[in-house]
Amino acid sequence: MIKIGIVGIGTVGSAVIKNLQKNRDLIKSRAGKEIKIIKGVVRDINKHKNIDIPLTTDYKEVTRNPEIDIVVELMGGVDKAYEVVSDALKHKKAVITANKALLAYHRFELQKLAKTSFEYEASVAGGIPVIKALRDGLSANHILEIKGIINGTCNYILSEMKKGRNYKEVLKEAQKKGYAEADPSFDVGGYDAAHKLLILASIAYNIDAKPEDILIEGIENINLTDIEFAKEFGYEIKLLGIAKKLDKKIELRVHPTLIKKSEMIAKVDGVMNAISVIGDVVGETMYYGPGAGGDATASAVISDIIEIVRGSKKPMLGYKIPLEIEKCSLIKSEDIISKYYLRIAVKDELGVLEKIAHILAQNNISIESFLQKPRNSYVKLLFATHKAKEKEIKKAISIIQKLNFVIKPINYIRIEE
Amino acid sequence: MIKIGIVGIGTVGSAVIKNLQKNRDLIKSRAGKEIKIIKGVVRDINKHKNIDIPLTTDYKEVTRNPEIDIVVELMGGVDKAYEVVSDALKHKKAVITANKALLAYHRFELQKLAKTSFEYEASVAGGIPVIKALRDGLSANHILEIKGIINGTCNYILSEMKKGRNYKEVLKEAQKKGYAEADPSFDVGGYDAAHKLLILASIAYNIDAKPEDILIEGIENINLTDIEFAKEFGYEIKLLGIAKKLDKKIELRVHPTLIKKSEMIAKVDGVMNAISVIGDVVGETMYYGPGAGGDATASAVISDIIEIVRGSKKPMLGYKIPLEIEKCSLIKSEDIISKYYLRIAVKDELGVLEKIAHILAQNNISIESFLQKPRNSYVKLLFATHKAKEKEIKKAISIIQKLNFVIKPINYIRIEE
Repeated sequence: MIKIGIVGIGTVGSAVIKNLQKNRDLIKSRAGKEIKIIKGVVRDINKHKNIDIPLTTDYKEVTRNPEIDIVVELMGGVDKAYEVVSDALKHKKAVITANKALLAYHRFELQKLAKTSFEYEASVAGGIPVIKALRDGLSANHILEIKGIINGTCNYILSEMKKGRNYKEVLKEAQKKGYAEADPSFDVGGYDAAHKLLILASIAYNIDAKPEDILIEGIENINLTDIEFAKEFGYEIKLLGIAKKLDKKIELRVHPTLIKKSEMIAKVDGVMNAISVIGDVVGETMYYGPGAGGDATASAVISDIIEIVRGSKKPMLGYKIPLEIEKCSLIKSEDIISKYYLRIAVKDELGVLEKIAHILAQNNISIESFLQKPRNSYVKLLFATHKAKEKEIKKAISIIQKLNFVIKPINYIRIEE
Repeated sequence: MIKIGIVGIGTVGSAVIKNLQKNRDLIKSRAGKEIKIIKGVVRDINKHKNIDIPLTTDYKEVTRNPEIDIVVELMGGVDKAYEVVSDALKHKKAVITANKALLAYHRFELQKLAKTSFEYEASVAGGIPVIKALRDGLSANHILEIKGIINGTCNYILSEMKKGRNYKEVLKEAQKKGYAEADPSFDVGGYDAAHKLLILASIAYNIDAKPEDILIEGIENINLTDIEFAKEFGYEIKLLGIAKKLDKKIELRVHPTLIKKSEMIAKVDGVMNAISVIGDVVGETMYYGPGAGGDATASAVISDIIEIVRGSKKPMLGYKIPLEIEKCSLIKSEDIISKYYLRIAVKDELGVLEKIAHILAQNNISIESFLQKPRNSYVKLLFATHKAKEKEIKKAISIIQKLNFVIKPINYIRIEE
């Protein structure tokens, strides 16, 4: 029998306990052994009176328990979780975590501590087995590109905005439905997606970057004019986590993106997640499913448990993170090259377009398409550019923003083709 | 070093050789060992002068070669391939095959012979790692349903027909482009999809059914009227392989299907494949990518090689096919329950609709929606029914077909909701 200790019994923890029980026979037959949770760690035992397993408030009763084979960390947060997981790894436990923030900051240190399995399928895109796909299913491939819808809150909001509803109204509704937190900034600001992107990039490229190192922009500035522009030019707007390999350099970024409607990932609406992966041998594959929720996340956690137990007939040793032979380095945000969409609100004056076009040209930015939308008291100029460097776009925008006929903050969205 | 013998060097075999060489360092680092093909088996050595590995025409030089660790079977066909694979397994080789026809007929016998790994990721949906997803990523789940677009030829033809092009014209073009064979019946008749469905169903349900045991219908009778009906009522027409678990009974079938446009799998166009899987814990996940082609298939074959080699640090033993605790049995085709679309061409006479409606009612078939399309010399009646039993629909159709005002063969398409 394999004995498990679980740290943190919230939505996901409860779902793990419930589904291990519900599918007990199936899981036993697939793992080859019985699996039992013998101890749970919680902050307040009195709040978990309906839980049928022995509880403690001291995590060391799990991480240092000689009876326990696998520690499952589902407490969330970074510092305390790091303490718990590293203690478990140091005591030679197999560890499973669903904690993306912990992994975004400490995945390489923790991987080094692991004497045996260290698994985290549930940390990215909930129930979608995308980590196993990257690590096992696509192992023959150099990963050229990953594009992920890995934040359901943002995808829900952007999907609803297509119906002509404005950002604030939809956000409020998402909060009511439980899709968004009371303080939504972690989701809508792109940080949650960034954590997950970093985990995927580690597997694909063995790259150790922190959230602070990469370009992260959220969906807060998207408005209905942008949605209209997207419709008019055959695009969808999605918050994407993007990882690209350009020779030995890796580009990592999270931002709202205009992508062609015909792309498979553009067709993913609502709270669902999807990750498109381009491999040099296989081409594009995509993985779609629920990116959050207790049961979906529990499915991933339990699949990790089964994988470890299957392996434990053999010495209990997880796959290492596949290493690229070459050490890849991160491209600086300012050097990232992309096409851009610009939204500039101006007074209806003579020579405005000429002046803006001049500034763009001076910064090596050429225009691919252009749309002018009259409003009551002003004019909206919508540009799509050819490929340009991040720092040149930023510079051009800061110059244009200061012109006295520009009357609102300029917005831009990267175009991915 | 791990030594491989390859049997059959056609499109896929050549791509395996090419990509093992191209990504040699990457694959070595991910597998933990160098991998080398040391012998190839072909029918005519003179036709493979550009191949850089020692060749033979005698498969036993591979299957019984004490130096060889893994035999990769890529020759296709059933009987000879069975002889080769079973010989290799009997001689304790790990075996990888991409041969769906072989597996459709002999997967359980072969699995029993396996003393070590027996892997077949490439046999279903080419480069999409759906077998690993079912076996590893979704291992916590009872699989409730699988719906797969697992024949690219059919999906291409049906996608093109949406543009108003007729079946024969598109089929001809598909043959020109190499998407369809000179004799297309294996693809368009649904048999290829059935082979793949049986493999997926074995993993999900441990069910040993043969192609002859299940309901298989092709896309040959779909015409532009059906496409119009689908558009009008918000459906797409897709050839789907469907596996469903209803209590301890398993339903397996391949046929053209009307599915709601909003379903993710309905959005998959062209030659691409996709498999939607509903698990009782995770809900719906979907796997999308190229279902054919040398490189895509090679990606799957090589991922199996890497998996076996990673395991070979430990005793070289593959996962068993996960067993359902309960033995599931197949539902008879005639007992399958579905909603139907019926296309009936009739003379424009009084009382026609009444008569047809009467026969449907007599056979317990009730009508959900109805559309009447006038043609020059006759009338097309298009019905969508509520749920009905296969045998009752078939009976009703055979009665209606004989009515003297019915002027063309009646067509039907199942509706999946």
